[in-house]
Amino acid sequence: MSGEHQRAGTHDRQGRVDGDLVDREARDQSRVDAVLDDFFRLAKRRAESVGYRYVDLWKVLERNTSGGKRFRPRMVFTTYTALGGRDDEAAARVGAAFELLHTALIVHDDVIDRDFSRRGIPNVSGSYRDEATTAGIPTPTAEHRGMSAAVIAGDLALTGASRLLLQVPCDGPVQARLLDLLDEAVFVSAGGEMIDVELSLSDDLPTVDEILDMERAKTAVYSFEAPLQAGAVLAEAPEAVVRALGEFGREVGVAYQVVDDLLGVFGTQSDTGKTVLGDLREGKRTVLVAHAATTDDWFGIRPFIGKADLSEAEAEVVRGRLEACGARRFAEQLVEDHARRALAVLDGPDVGEALRDALAPLVQVVLERVR
Amino acid sequence: MSGEHQRAGTHDRQGRVDGDLVDREARDQSRVDAVLDDFFRLAKRRAESVGYRYVDLWKVLERNTSGGKRFRPRMVFTTYTALGGRDDEAAARVGAAFELLHTALIVHDDVIDRDFSRRGIPNVSGSYRDEATTAGIPTPTAEHRGMSAAVIAGDLALTGASRLLLQVPCDGPVQARLLDLLDEAVFVSAGGEMIDVELSLSDDLPTVDEILDMERAKTAVYSFEAPLQAGAVLAEAPEAVVRALGEFGREVGVAYQVVDDLLGVFGTQSDTGKTVLGDLREGKRTVLVAHAATTDDWFGIRPFIGKADLSEAEAEVVRGRLEACGARRFAEQLVEDHARRALAVLDGPDVGEALRDALAPLVQVVLERVR
Repeated sequence: MSGEHQRAGTHDRQGRVDGDLVDREARDQSRVDAVLDDFFRLAKRRAESVGYRYVDLWKVLERNTSGGKRFRPRMVFTTYTALGGRDDEAAARVGAAFELLHTALIVHDDVIDRDFSRRGIPNVSGSYRDEATTAGIPTPTAEHRGMSAAVIAGDLALTGASRLLLQVPCDGPVQARLLDLLDEAVFVSAGGEMIDVELSLSDDLPTVDEILDMERAKTAVYSFEAPLQAGAVLAEAPEAVVRALGEFGREVGVAYQVVDDLLGVFGTQSDTGKTVLGDLREGKRTVLVAHAATTDDWFGIRPFIGKADLSEAEAEVVRGRLEACGARRFAEQLVEDHARRALAVLDGPDVGEALRDALAPLVQVVLERVR
Repeated sequence: MSGEHQRAGTHDRQGRVDGDLVDREARDQSRVDAVLDDFFRLAKRRAESVGYRYVDLWKVLERNTSGGKRFRPRMVFTTYTALGGRDDEAAARVGAAFELLHTALIVHDDVIDRDFSRRGIPNVSGSYRDEATTAGIPTPTAEHRGMSAAVIAGDLALTGASRLLLQVPCDGPVQARLLDLLDEAVFVSAGGEMIDVELSLSDDLPTVDEILDMERAKTAVYSFEAPLQAGAVLAEAPEAVVRALGEFGREVGVAYQVVDDLLGVFGTQSDTGKTVLGDLREGKRTVLVAHAATTDDWFGIRPFIGKADLSEAEAEVVRGRLEACGARRFAEQLVEDHARRALAVLDGPDVGEALRDALAPLVQVVLERVR
């Protein structure tokens, strides 16, 4: 998930900015940050007994966990608060667990993608690689050091996520449900990652449905479904509500991912925080590409997909052809369909007014990203 | 840890094979296998909903978890049974958790070491690489596919370990202690792995103490200390016993690792399950090398350490010099010192006779490996 929006839940249904909400979000975020600060402070202290080199790894991991928009914790707080939850410290702990899970998954995703930076800043691999090259170590060795550190750091973040959930002050059955949700999030996102690896290696282009299933598994479950449901579980909401939030999360999560695909080609750098040539240059399997491959225009698009030195002028040509063949419109329609279905879930019998009012703006924000 | 012995606890103090013990160990092992079979059966079924490619990953991970000597589960059972524990199903679950942790750590260790096989059999990376090369995919891409699959598989095994602990039927405080032990094992072994990465990159040779600390952290804690303590915690043994088992595990674990260093140079292939040129060729930082570096003979040894094409004849020269400079004797003395200290812990006030009788043979087995 790239270019995470910064203001989910800060608009009410009429689109007005709600000052109270902004204040509450800032307060929730600082609670999450405080939980993570404590977590890392303790880990760094524990690491001292193993060795200073290990303390360094924790410092790098901490840097890679900070500065995010705390998107997943916000999902937790949104449902928790709307469902009447009042123990903000507990919610912050659950939110921090999902934030650490996010760190774990992107750190290992970067290993798999051989990426040494994220949003222009060195990631774990990049920090360790750069330090080594500065010390005169040859690049392949330095890169390998970076990857090794990142494999270990991801393991620590993954373990840390379940540790944080174990420390949530709540009843045993609630805790068990929270741990189940985290487990499901890890299980499904690992599957999505594996399928992404395989799809990107295959000569055959995947179908639109394969792309959507992969994107849902890799990102939407742990970013939307699971944290939205976790907030409800922590608030001890009825099972029907938790189930409805799963459906809502799936729809809005898939919409979000398709928006990402669109922004990766048609967005501006400020939308996405990364070059908008990246997806095309790396030949990323997206809904756009999968749809274009089913059209007669594909022969004129294919040569540019995965062209490592694609120029901005060539990218403009591809954009024009992706538009002409209907791929852009198709993807936009997908976003709208899933957004509509997400809103329909909110209008269902199991979702009360407070929850609906809290979640509808999220759909708006997703739609606005692409408009 | 390589060349794990197959018969810990199958000798009594006089060295006679105890038939009852062999039967019990076989029974315990099949209980652990049954827990793991269930775990993987469920995971493969769950994976179907994500995609057949994900089911394949679980199958490969399962293969990489089977066939081991179930060393860590045996540590759990040894203390649990000696301390009066009778719920063998619970112990099997705890043992299986440590077995999965072991899988997770070696799968990621192999990624870090860029190893594609373990004991001559393709590991997770190797299976995925080989399948890809057979399909005509170029080696670098195939290797990268292998590494990617292994990063994901290790994450799944790591998560699986704590899931299994969460399913142990026991009181809340006991479960919390078990989870703490697992967490400590992950935390410390990750630190050991990181320090191993750093030591192997450094031009400066580490000291003997640095090697011992690294080996203890990387392997001894999760292989000895934590599972021995977990058996005691599950048996609800007094805190003093759990502490003594930590000390015992540390001593015997370090002895075991130094034996590994010795066998890696002076052992036979049947001792270690791997070529005895491997450690020398890869320039592995061992107690032998660290000690030799402090002697005047080092200039005649150094050129061979890390020589990728070291011949058997050259290895014989190195062996002779490691012996002449006293490194072999030094390492053997270290093993004996730690073994003696391990036995001294067993003679302490907190360890009862049954536990002493169950654990003393473990020290013998470690000593016998090197004699």
